[in-house]
Amino acid sequence: MTTQQLYNQIQQKKSFLCIGLDVDLNKIPEHLLGTEDPIFEFNKAIIDATHDLCVSYKPNTAFYEAYGLKGWQSLEKTIQYINENYPDIFTIADAKRGDIGNTSSMYAKAFFEDLQFDSVTVAPYMGKDSVEPFLVFEDKHTIMLALTSNEGAFDFQTLKIEGRELYKQVIETSTEWKNSHNLMYVVGATKAEYLSEIREIIPNSFLLVPGVGAQGGSLEEVCKYGMNHHVGLLINSSRGIIYASKDKDFADAARVEALKLQQQMQQILEEKEK
Amino acid sequence: MTTQQLYNQIQQKKSFLCIGLDVDLNKIPEHLLGTEDPIFEFNKAIIDATHDLCVSYKPNTAFYEAYGLKGWQSLEKTIQYINENYPDIFTIADAKRGDIGNTSSMYAKAFFEDLQFDSVTVAPYMGKDSVEPFLVFEDKHTIMLALTSNEGAFDFQTLKIEGRELYKQVIETSTEWKNSHNLMYVVGATKAEYLSEIREIIPNSFLLVPGVGAQGGSLEEVCKYGMNHHVGLLINSSRGIIYASKDKDFADAARVEALKLQQQMQQILEEKEK
Repeated sequence: MTTQQLYNQIQQKKSFLCIGLDVDLNKIPEHLLGTEDPIFEFNKAIIDATHDLCVSYKPNTAFYEAYGLKGWQSLEKTIQYINENYPDIFTIADAKRGDIGNTSSMYAKAFFEDLQFDSVTVAPYMGKDSVEPFLVFEDKHTIMLALTSNEGAFDFQTLKIEGRELYKQVIETSTEWKNSHNLMYVVGATKAEYLSEIREIIPNSFLLVPGVGAQGGSLEEVCKYGMNHHVGLLINSSRGIIYASKDKDFADAARVEALKLQQQMQQILEEKEK
Repeated sequence: MTTQQLYNQIQQKKSFLCIGLDVDLNKIPEHLLGTEDPIFEFNKAIIDATHDLCVSYKPNTAFYEAYGLKGWQSLEKTIQYINENYPDIFTIADAKRGDIGNTSSMYAKAFFEDLQFDSVTVAPYMGKDSVEPFLVFEDKHTIMLALTSNEGAFDFQTLKIEGRELYKQVIETSTEWKNSHNLMYVVGATKAEYLSEIREIIPNSFLLVPGVGAQGGSLEEVCKYGMNHHVGLLINSSRGIIYASKDKDFADAARVEALKLQQQMQQILEEKEK
């Protein structure tokens, strides 16, 4: 998928919502536990109930790996289901991978070619040759951690290197890598005011923003500081949507929560166009 | 496994060799490709031929994920085979994971409980709360990236924060985390002289050292600067051993290469005891 196609979808749905499919068997409705593949059944119902309100789904691979072979199978079925039924959706494998060159190539192959995800999240610590193998895939997107939404972000990411925070150095350096036009960035919503400084370095890139909702970030603040001429934002919400109810009405309840966010986004987009 | 058990094994085998099981279907002998699970058959033969010469096996998860469900199955069979037949071996899931707290917990569960690895590699970029969920597992080990052996290590890891390199800051900070006694560190062999400075910060920790052999690092140099009173080193070699031959004699050829390294290690250990 090209960023233009992603932008078209945002305009059409009046939404830049990404729904995180972080599925924990301890948190899904009990009646699903008796089915052959509870995780896939859960995802399928959530996807069918919300696909017109969001532009992206983001399964976090940890939640699938935690169930071993069966979990991996649920992930495969989920991405296939999305690609077959809702091909306009931008899919993100939230995997936070990164390794030496030949190994990163294997990860890129796994997520882009075999699983057919549109994008994958990666960690920057190992530098250029750990990320570039992902960037060679055209119309695929590599979403690099810049400033995350957890407390530990302040351990290293905000440390200053010659007067400038590490996360800004990471972003700036990455713009010089080969095929850097295929980069997007993770920027946590809990530090919305930082977004305007980030926009000075990468005015045109898409940002994936976790931390709205359960982690306390404000949608309005994020849009105020982070939105660009092509919207340029994907706002992720996971637990607030998928675990809105633990009963048989879980998919309807998820739709209600997704709709609330979509309507706020629609209002923001309409304000912007005035 | 405790570090004392690992040390005992090192003394007994006179080896601190770790063999990286980075299995690529394009590089293994053709006669295996017709078997039901070529990756597992390859690993099984390599393990049977080398288990008395090394103290650790390190499958890199990327190489298994690249083959989807079948790859994951090969990984499960490989770790089970090691644990059942050679329970004294220290197993490392080279996964370089790291995510927000509840997600890192899922990864820790996947690698420590379900797959029963002794250790897993993690990335430090997201800080304390992304690593601590791994550290709560006693007699399991979390091997954090400090200074890697690739070119990209110089992009961020060696940048100076108030006069001190990021990788040293990462190591120093991590020593204050809860259960930091369960930490080990990845330190690339291509920068052996850096090891003495690292030893000033963490004199007692085990270091996993990639980059000897194929990536050009010297075993003697690494031992000179990095060895401590409990040896404290695991030297990884992957391609140099497992791809020593592409013919039917591949396992014997792997043994020959592993033996060369083991004998060098034995000599170094004996020199040390003089």
